[in-house]
This record gives sequence, C-alpha cells and structure tokens, in this order.
Amino acid sequence: PAAWGLHFDLTIPFARYVLENSSNLDFPFRRYQLQKAWRGERPQEGRYREFCQADIDVVGDSELPIHIDAEVVEVALAALRELSTQIGTPEALARVNNRRLAAGVFEGLGIADPAPVLRLTDKLAKIGSDQVLGLLVEEAGLSKDTAASVIEFAQISGPLDAVLPKLDALGVENESFLLGRQQLVDVVSRIAKRFPDSVIADMQIARGLDYYTGTIFELVLIGRESLGSISAGGRYDQLASDGKRTYPGVGISIGLSRILTPMIATGELTASRKVPTVVLVAVNDEESRDQSEHVASQLRDRGIACEVSPSAAKFGKQIKYAERRQIPYVWFVSPDGDEVKNLASREQSPANAATWTPSDAELRITNQKEQR
Amino acid sequence: PAAWGLHFDLTIPFARYVLENSSNLDFPFRRYQLQKAWRGERPQEGRYREFCQADIDVVGDSELPIHIDAEVVEVALAALRELSTQIGTPEALARVNNRRLAAGVFEGLGIADPAPVLRLTDKLAKIGSDQVLGLLVEEAGLSKDTAASVIEFAQISGPLDAVLPKLDALGVENESFLLGRQQLVDVVSRIAKRFPDSVIADMQIARGLDYYTGTIFELVLIGRESLGSISAGGRYDQLASDGKRTYPGVGISIGLSRILTPMIATGELTASRKVPTVVLVAVNDEESRDQSEHVASQLRDRGIACEVSPSAAKFGKQIKYAERRQIPYVWFVSPDGDEVKNLASREQSPANAATWTPSDAELRITNQKEQR
Repeated sequence: PAAWGLHFDLTIPFARYVLENSSNLDFPFRRYQLQKAWRGERPQEGRYREFCQADIDVVGDSELPIHIDAEVVEVALAALRELSTQIGTPEALARVNNRRLAAGVFEGLGIADPAPVLRLTDKLAKIGSDQVLGLLVEEAGLSKDTAASVIEFAQISGPLDAVLPKLDALGVENESFLLGRQQLVDVVSRIAKRFPDSVIADMQIARGLDYYTGTIFELVLIGRESLGSISAGGRYDQLASDGKRTYPGVGISIGLSRILTPMIATGELTASRKVPTVVLVAVNDEESRDQSEHVASQLRDRGIACEVSPSAAKFGKQIKYAERRQIPYVWFVSPDGDEVKNLASREQSPANAATWTPSDAELRITNQKEQR
Repeated sequence: PAAWGLHFDLTIPFARYVLENSSNLDFPFRRYQLQKAWRGERPQEGRYREFCQADIDVVGDSELPIHIDAEVVEVALAALRELSTQIGTPEALARVNNRRLAAGVFEGLGIADPAPVLRLTDKLAKIGSDQVLGLLVEEAGLSKDTAASVIEFAQISGPLDAVLPKLDALGVENESFLLGRQQLVDVVSRIAKRFPDSVIADMQIARGLDYYTGTIFELVLIGRESLGSISAGGRYDQLASDGKRTYPGVGISIGLSRILTPMIATGELTASRKVPTVVLVAVNDEESRDQSEHVASQLRDRGIACEVSPSAAKFGKQIKYAERRQIPYVWFVSPDGDEVKNLASREQSPANAATWTPSDAELRITNQKEQR
C-alpha cells in the first residue's frame, strides 16, 4: 500500500521512537544505529539509491547541555581517526557553524527571509562569489551592499581566534547573534581541546535540513575536500515534541559509501588479500578429513580464520588453491607432527595448532597501500 | 516503480550475485550476510514484516562436495552454542533429511506427484497422523495403504543407527533412494562427530522451498520445540545457472527474532542492566568537565564503556543518575588521586584510569537470568 515507505533517513524515525517510548527512557538518551536507508533524489556515483547510514544521536528531556553538541562531533572524529589508523583514509576536518548566529547576522543586515539567502550562499563553493552575488540580488532581492556583506560573512572560516575578530567586526549585537556566537565558541573550543587540528568555525556551512536549530557541522577528508561532506549533522531543538514536552537532540551521520567508494575506485584502498582466511588446512585423504577439521577448529577457537581444503587432491594442487585465494599459510597434518608452510617465504616448519600464531598483519585483511 | 521490490530472502539475490560475478570468484565461494528482509505473508508474533536475516551459503563451480552440507549446519550449531554460552539460550538440535531419499521412497510407493504428499505430511506435527491420513486419501488421491506407508515413513526419526534399519526395512532400492540415503549418512555422521547430541535424521522435515534438491535441515531449540524451526536451509544444485555452467550451493538461515523475541517476552532473557555503560565519570564543576572527559577517554581506550555526567550537580544527584541507569560504578576525579565507587557494595576505593579494570561480568551486559 502507498501508506508504507522506506527509511530515507534514521533521524525522523528515531524522533518518533523517543516520543513513543519517552516514559521508559532515561535522558539524556544516546543511541547509535547502522542501517540501510534509501535516497529519494537521483542516485549518483557514491550516492546510491540504497546505502548504509551510520548515525549517532543524543536526546534530552526538555534540555540538553551544549557540550553534547561537541561530544557527537568528537565521536565522529574519533571513529574517522580509527579508520585512518586502520586502513589509511585521510584525516577528517570538522567545519562547525551555528544557525542562531547566522540568523542574527541576517537580522542585523535587515534580511526578512533568510531561507533563500542560505540556499544561495550554500552554492559559494560550487559557483563562486560573483555568481552568488548576482543571484542574491536577482533572486533574493537584496541590495548589492547587503549581498556583498552576506558573502563576506559566509567566507569567514578558520580557527576560533581568527574567526571571532571578523565576526565581531560585523558589529551585530542582537540576542540571536550573541547566543549563537557563545554556542559556537563552546562547541569549537571543546572539540579543539581533544582534536586541535581537526576543527574550524566555518560560516559557509548551511545544511539543507529545516529541523536544525543551533549548532550545525559538516566533516570533510583533508586533501579530499572534493568528495564533499562525508559526515554531517546538527542540533535539533524542536524535532521531537508531544505538545507538553520537547526532547531536544543533536545527531551526526557518517556516510560510509561516500568515504570508501572513491578510495576503492582509485585503488587507494586495496585489500591485502582476497579472503579473510589465514590458513588453508590441507587434507591428506577424504578418510582423514576429520583430523584437518579438528586442526581448523583449534585455530578458529584462537581467532585464526581457516579453511579446510575442499578436496584431498595432491598437495601441489592444494597449495595452488591457497595461492589463487592469496591465503598466506598451508597447514599439513601428520602423525609425526604438523607443519605449516609460509607461501611467501616458501619456508615450512613444525607447528602446533594449540600455540602457532601468525603475525598481526597476516591475521586480518589490511589496506595493501599502507605499509604498516 | 512496480519494477522495484524489497528482499524477501537473501538466497536468490546471492545466486544472482554469483552468476554475475562468477569470473571474479574463486570456488567454493563462502559468504555470510546479515541484513533486513521483508516478509510477504501475514506477519505474526516473532515473524515480523521487517526482520533481520542471518545467512551462510557456500557455492561451488559445477560441483560442491557433500561435506560442505555438514559444514554449514556445524557453523549454525557452533553459533547457537556460543549464543547459549553467552546468554543462556537452550541448546539446538539439527533435524536433517534428504529430498532424493524421500523422492525415492515415494517413487517406490508408486506416487506419481510427490508435491501435494510432501505438503500434507508437513502438517503431521500440527494436525496429527489421523487427519493427515484422511487428507492423503481425499486430497492427494492415495490408497489407504499407501497413505499409511507415507505416514510411517515420515515418522522415522532419530540417530542414524536407529533410523537406517527402519529406512532399509521399507525395501526401496531405486537409484534416488540409494543416493539420498548415502548423502544423509555422510551429512548426519559428519555433524555427529563434532556435535554428537545435536543432530538427528528426521524424515518429517520437508521445507517448503522448491529450489532444494538434496540435503534439507531445520534446527529447533531443545525443550522449546514449540518455537518452530529457528534455523533452516538445504542444498540447491540448480538455483544458479547461466545455461553453460551450474553453481550448486548449500545454505542456512538463522532467525534471530524467532529465537530472541519469545525469550524476551517470557523474561528468560533479561538484560543485566539498561545501558552498556560501566562507569559514570562524575563532574566536579563545569570548568573541570575536561578532566572527567579525559578519564573517560582513557577508560574507553581500554574497552571500558563510560559516560561523563551530563551535569555538575551535587554528587548525590550524580550517583542517583547512575543508579537510575543501573551503571555499576561512579568515578570521582580529584587532584589528590581519583576514586571509584561500586554502587552495589557502596565501597569507594582509590583508582587509576590507566589500570583499573571491572570484573568480566560487569564489562558487558549479560543475561540477568544466568548466574555466571
């Protein structure tokens, strides 16, 4: 029936979950969720119709301290740093803005309807300031001076100590600006304590979603800014409300396919082997397959991924099978004592399934492009 | 568009994947997949419209040794045994049958169309042998004697040494029966070597899916047979074929919600606490929140799940917050040396974030009903 649909994001279903279960939840309520979602817009490379979304959200009951805004960004930066360490993705940079601050600046500039202005300044990186200036005058009806001020404002970005003097030089003093400025300082300075080189304030960050009310942020990979934002989110103070109570939240999504697809396409990310298997346990003959399976069980119990040879062919053929699959070791079972052959060095040595251990690098598939 | 659909299982998309990528795959190709799937039939308790499917399949190129049929059942039994150890679910029993064997028996009984006969005998457990006997005569057009033989055959089950004499007493000797019998012996005896009390041969297992050709199996939880099969699968020799080549496979699904939902409903499965958090790090005042967050980072780096107190309220209130969330420890940061309070014993003792470790039972959420 038309009344059913597919998740296009995980935040709105989450807000509904919080409302329906608020009496059983303790706040602040933190949850992460990794799940398929479906894109409504036209699919593009790295932006698939069906994709995997990874979300973190924290929701409070009536109030949610501002330090939680920093916390979710820090979790994403920590996760991306771990990904960088593990498989060599570039380091991430968080670009943080605040909607109240921007609203205050627009209010100070006498702009009655900030929505089209935000939508147009969001195109700065794509079409350049001259084009945006023209559109702000033609489409948003701003004077040329006001449009120039908007662009000047939107181009403010950098560490807090560089950004704050420029913001203050705008001479805006309304309540919205001052509250937004304070929140921006709180969030960026907190993130910078733990990730000093991974966060800037950036007035160009606009975020399309209507439900954000304060802090907004996008993360890019340093040196790979052309991939666009690979993670983004913000504070939503009004998304979940049952009329009596409001549950303010802040959330962030990480776009796994946005990060990994281009790196796989360029070969920057190349698996060190085709299969997770570390050891192929050879089979002497079908009658003794059990013994080979017993060895595999022992190794698996110690976290070493194994395959038992599918056939009891000649050892040369079994070794070729391992080589074709890029399995690093072949194990030979013998009543005189087992032996294991390292297919890279061609060395074969006595081995005991209860104690033998491969190197850390061999234990898991790694990024071949990284020499760690 | 109507041309799009949702996965109703993972096996058919997998067969398509194998065909489309056969030139890049090494066979036998093993894959596991955990993913949402959607039920076409009417949803019921524990059988949801949207559910999580866990599948293992192994596919060969043109041939796939029979020992792989045993392997996938052993993987499921090992996974369910681990689940049993970890959270106290009952032990599993694999009930194994073979379609060739059944086809041979039906051929021997002179039954031309075995499909309706299989469908009716599948109801034995639900409606009893008298009812099925009547239906076999009325709906499937069998003679009363033949119908009685079918029921007698379908009720054969047990360990191989009990089942084989009964099968052989049927006096069937056609090719299909003999091949199916040999495969049944191969598969059941192999599983029984590693899991002697966890496998039987059972002629009542029919499986609804048309694509199974040989070995078929269903797993039940011992003592909780009323839950129905919580895992099932079989051998499909013809599912994936591109006209020139055929890729025989064998697969098994584990129904996680079928296992867990009833146990959660009866209270047999009860989380030992509400949140994964092991330690609430208290905050002395908002100015020193950083120090509390630093402690949390150190503990997290060592695999200990932490929360930093959302507010710098009085310690009594912070402790109440931890108790409400059933967090076992509260950590106090102090220039004179940190201390940690065990909320169960009320003991407070000096602690170092670089070395302090909770007990294994406290480190993760466990099943409260299990005293381990």
